Amino acid sequence: MSLSKNLTQLGNKPTACASKTLEVFPNPNPERDYHIKIDSPEFTCLCPKTGQPDFADIKIDYIPDEFCVELKSLKLYYWSFRDEGHFHEQVTNMMASDLIAAMNPRYLKVTAIFNVRGGVYTTVEVEHRQSC
Amino acid sequence: MSLSKNLTQLGNKPTACASKTLEVFPNPNPERDYHIKIDSPEFTCLCPKTGQPDFADIKIDYIPDEFCVELKSLKLYYWSFRDEGHFHEQVTNMMASDLIAAMNPRYLKVTAIFNVRGGVYTTVEVEHRQSC
Amino acid sequence: MSLSKNLTQLGNKPTACASKTLEVFPNPNPERDYHIKIDSPEFTCLCPKTGQPDFADIKIDYIPDEFCVELKSLKLYYWSFRDEGHFHEQVTNMMASDLIAAMNPRYLKVTAIFNVRGGVYTTVEVEHRQSC
Amino acid sequence: MSLSKNLTQLGNKPTACASKTLEVFPNPNPERDYHIKIDSPEFTCLCPKTGQPDFADIKIDYIPDEFCVELKSLKLYYWSFRDEGHFHEQVTNMMASDLIAAMNPRYLKVTAIFNVRGGVYTTVEVEHRQSC
Amino acid sequence: MSLSKNLTQLGNKPTACASKTLEVFPNPNPERDYHIKIDSPEFTCLCPKTGQPDFADIKIDYIPDEFCVELKSLKLYYWSFRDEGHFHEQVTNMMASDLIAAMNPRYLKVTAIFNVRGGVYTTVEVEHRQSC
Amino acid sequence: MSLSKNLTQLGNKPTACASKTLEVFPNPNPERDYHIKIDSPEFTCLCPKTGQPDFADIKIDYIPDEFCVELKSLKLYYWSFRDEGHFHEQVTNMMASDLIAAMNPRYLKVTAIFNVRGGVYTTVEVEHRQSC
Amino acid sequence: MSLSKNLTQLGNKPTACASKTLEVFPNPNPERDYHIKIDSPEFTCLCPKTGQPDFADIKIDYIPDEFCVELKSLKLYYWSFRDEGHFHEQVTNMMASDLIAAMNPRYLKVTAIFNVRGGVYTTVEVEHRQSC
Amino acid sequence: MSLSKNLTQLGNKPTACASKTLEVFPNPNPERDYHIKIDSPEFTCLCPKTGQPDFADIKIDYIPDEFCVELKSLKLYYWSFRDEGHFHEQVTNMMASDLIAAMNPRYLKVTAIFNVRGGVYTTVEVEHRQSC
Amino acid sequence: MSLSKNLTQLGNKPTACASKTLEVFPNPNPERDYHIKIDSPEFTCLCPKTGQPDFADIKIDYIPDEFCVELKSLKLYYWSFRDEGHFHEQVTNMMASDLIAAMNPRYLKVTAIFNVRGGVYTTVEVEHRQSC
Amino acid sequence: MSLSKNLTQLGNKPTACASKTLEVFPNPNPERDYHIKIDSPEFTCLCPKTGQPDFADIKIDYIPDEFCVELKSLKLYYWSFRDEGHFHEQVTNMMASDLIAAMNPRYLKVTAIFNVRGGVYTTVEVEHRQSC
Repeated sequence: MSLSKNLTQLGNKPTACASKTLEVFPNPNPERDYHIKIDSPEFTCLCPKTGQPDFADIKIDYIPDEFCVELKSLKLYYWSFRDEGHFHEQVTNMMASDLIAAMNPRYLKVTAIFNVRGGVYTTVEVEHRQSC
Repeated sequence: MSLSKNLTQLGNKPTACASKTLEVFPNPNPERDYHIKIDSPEFTCLCPKTGQPDFADIKIDYIPDEFCVELKSLKLYYWSFRDEGHFHEQVTNMMASDLIAAMNPRYLKVTAIFNVRGGVYTTVEVEHRQSC
Repeated sequence: MSLSKNLTQLGNKPTACASKTLEVFPNPNPERDYHIKIDSPEFTCLCPKTGQPDFADIKIDYIPDEFCVELKSLKLYYWSFRDEGHFHEQVTNMMASDLIAAMNPRYLKVTAIFNVRGGVYTTVEVEHRQSC
Repeated sequence: MSLSKNLTQLGNKPTACASKTLEVFPNPNPERDYHIKIDSPEFTCLCPKTGQPDFADIKIDYIPDEFCVELKSLKLYYWSFRDEGHFHEQVTNMMASDLIAAMNPRYLKVTAIFNVRGGVYTTVEVEHRQSC
Repeated sequence: MSLSKNLTQLGNKPTACASKTLEVFPNPNPERDYHIKIDSPEFTCLCPKTGQPDFADIKIDYIPDEFCVELKSLKLYYWSFRDEGHFHEQVTNMMASDLIAAMNPRYLKVTAIFNVRGGVYTTVEVEHRQSC
Repeated sequence: MSLSKNLTQLGNKPTACASKTLEVFPNPNPERDYHIKIDSPEFTCLCPKTGQPDFADIKIDYIPDEFCVELKSLKLYYWSFRDEGHFHEQVTNMMASDLIAAMNPRYLKVTAIFNVRGGVYTTVEVEHRQSC
Repeated sequence: MSLSKNLTQLGNKPTACASKTLEVFPNPNPERDYHIKIDSPEFTCLCPKTGQPDFADIKIDYIPDEFCVELKSLKLYYWSFRDEGHFHEQVTNMMASDLIAAMNPRYLKVTAIFNVRGGVYTTVEVEHRQSC
Repeated sequence: MSLSKNLTQLGNKPTACASKTLEVFPNPNPERDYHIKIDSPEFTCLCPKTGQPDFADIKIDYIPDEFCVELKSLKLYYWSFRDEGHFHEQVTNMMASDLIAAMNPRYLKVTAIFNVRGGVYTTVEVEHRQSC
Repeated sequence: MSLSKNLTQLGNKPTACASKTLEVFPNPNPERDYHIKIDSPEFTCLCPKTGQPDFADIKIDYIPDEFCVELKSLKLYYWSFRDEGHFHEQVTNMMASDLIAAMNPRYLKVTAIFNVRGGVYTTVEVEHRQSC
Repeated sequence: MSLSKNLTQLGNKPTACASKTLEVFPNPNPERDYHIKIDSPEFTCLCPKTGQPDFADIKIDYIPDEFCVELKSLKLYYWSFRDEGHFHEQVTNMMASDLIAAMNPRYLKVTAIFNVRGGVYTTVEVEHRQSC
């Protein structure tokens, strides 16, 4: 039986940091239109009116042009909203704009499915097509 | 252990009132067509024939133009029907008309899914597109 | 084609009234222990702190002794809470006590599944057995 | 405790009768195209070959023109098939024709989902558009 | 292509008749306790108060002693309730008593899941064990 | 108690026989395009490579022209494959061709959903439109 | 591209044969009570009254003693019923008896869930415990 | 149309603060054993090894003795973990201990269902009964 | 009781080998456009960054031209990725290209649904149409 | 836009290795009986008879005594079976024995739900209680 050291690692540095930078890598198959769909059910930010936590499931669906978004940096990007106050409509559009700026995809849809508040379920859905 | 005072708050004033006024705020991203979907499974009014309670799940899906509907005022708006008698077809059209008057959205769909009555399930679905 | 008169019935009296009275009828088979389960997903009352509507699904499961609760009066009984302020724990116990007083059942369980509030789902479940 | 009289009502007249008459009322919003969907999972008739009961879930979806079908009369209309023998294809077309005759809707779809017989599930789906 | 004669069979006699008689056959394995579960989602009778159709899903679960109930006769037995008025509690107990009289099973449970009426779902569940 | 004779019927002749003949009857409503959908989850044939049983759920969806397929003969038709070896692609096309030959429908789709084999789920879907 | 020969294998011998023999192998861990559960949704036999195919999902759950049943032989065992007429109650007990004879398990449950016939779903469930 | 002021409220103070204090109120029905179940799918803390966010659904089920936990303070209590590092096993036990200290319930179960990490789903479930 | 020899077969050669070769056979019905859909939920390769296993459900949907892909060779093809490092986007495109090279189908869609990693679910979907 | 280096990391060493060593850490709350449930749907090994891949979902549920199993080492432990041949019954018992040897838990259940093979679904379920 080997006794794990993991309880002593509590003081360790995080292995990654929240970051607004979206890293990209070259699309391996730009000759073809294809979809990449990424579902992140662990998005949380703060309500700008009450300061209380909000939660959402963020889905993106895009057709890459020259670049694809790197998955780990996307995760850190979502994490960067954790301590920020954002309205539902504004933050969904902001994420769409950031992804467009980073990748210039041929097509992009961002869907943010927010958890129920006051008996009301809100979803914001932004679609974008590359201008020719 | 701290003993909550909440049982003594019973005589307090309500923190909000049912209201037919739909408040709006400026669309933060009018340059883009995007959908806002709001699902409210807690709508109740009265049957105009029997006076007995009716229940419905009200879903709206719209593309804002200059304005978005404010969520809390939408909740109070739905609440305002609680003691009113309404037919299924008429109340769904009335909610669509009120939302169009308040926001003039580019697109709107209102779907009212009423609870079963007499073994029959009724859904009314109104769609509207902004005239050019 | 016959043109219905139902739009003219709007001014009619309700066919039934909310009432705290639970009517009962004689158990047709008291010689046997059997369960009657009644699920009412349309319960609504008011939050005693904010005055805003609360919603719940009320399930009862009982073994009748001499009496069974009459279904229509149970529906009117639930309806009688529509304009009253009640806490979750208290109102579930109150319904259990009223059903026990009306029927003195051999067994009773009342389960109140309240709609989500503030990201929190609450269920209160009261069980009772007839004392010998 | 109030003892209900409901067991003595057994000899009472029915409060409504099965009827082939579909009552209609004026469409409250004829200026707009909107859908009314009515799902009735309690349709039963007889098999014309064996005389044994058949069961179906009847769904209608229509866009009203001048008239809407009244819900209670629709329920009595479905009930009127209870003791009649009908083939699946024929009865679905018959219900579509009767609804068209009663309402002349802009659009109508009738879907009859019959219960499994001999390991086989049958659905008949009739669509109609108002001729210009 | 062979043209079926089935449309001409409309005047034929039914191949079976509704009947209150429950036929039984000898349990092929009385040396062992085992369960037979039969689910019939097509039960319909009339409401004794309004005369309108009621619908239920009837489930039975039994351990046979000397006899098993024959499936086709059970189907005809359920059919025999089609034109009769019955209360929920009484008809479930009546079916249990009839099955006990026909088979004297070691164990029997009859569960009647009635369709929603007035926003209320009712289930009656009767259990019986053979007396030693 | 009436003792059923059904155990003595074991030597009886089958009431129907598997058959490749698809019987049809005249479409009762040829003036209208409508769909008939028939789902048969009990199809079985043999794997032509191993001789072992294969299983499939066969769904058909068609718009009849002059004729409809008779349900019982369809069931016997499916049964006729029970002892034959067939490849997935070939048998689905064969059933489509047989149905087209029997009915000459305005539209036909045959979907064969085969049970998993070797961790792989296969579905074959054939569509046909009547040539003008 | 390599062109498969599989269409020419149609005349080949089956790789296995239906068989009533249940092969067993030594329980690798007889020192411990543990469950083995095997679900076979592809059982088919014939109805002894009509000769038409019946279908069932057979589930077994057992605690092995000295022997476990070999999976492939179990599959061939189920296959051996394909052309035989069996009643629901009898065939389930027969499979239980055959498994007990082959393995003498500490515990065995056989559950046969038959496909719906005449609107009725039947399940037979046999339990057995090793005698001490 | 009334233009909402809500965009100007961004600089406002939060209406509530995360807090480790669990407020309680007197059990309205201590004469009876009953269950209160509270499901909070929005729990988030940090992984003590990587510093990255963890997410969980926290369910509690308790029988109150003299006190019940106040729902809003429970929500603020869960919120207080948002910026803290915790192991799965330890944080579930800690929440159980805090609830026991605050309410001394007759029975308590805390179930923490953590989101998948590295392909592995972890649930920790702590049960406690009041010592006599 | 026959004692199986299967425990002694452990040293046997595998009956098949992982292989990048996709075998095809002639489309039995090239005169018609039809779909073949194959779902393989057991794909696994390695993460090229960490060397750890990745898992996916691979679905293909194609309209064959002259050739169909042989199912067993497809299974061995998927198996050939088991010890190789691949990125999500690249491996999905590679499988699409290999299937196009082997069959030159009229239409092809490859959907790779990867298991969650770091709280993120990724799906890659490649579509191809035969050039005229 | 920052261009990710991740495509150049392909030659990197794995960050972790498959290993049969199960690391443990001290139970933070040994004074209390509580359950830890870990579900790993990504287990794969080889069939000892055919050499082909097998897949399973492995669930463990245990009450720790002095030690808990460390999650990452459990994942590497499952990974270590990837290239080994194992029978269903034997590998489930082996995992139970290894977990008992590493942790000596008060209670342990290991459930291995194997993917369908030859139309048959197999689950093996091993339970263990610490001897007093």
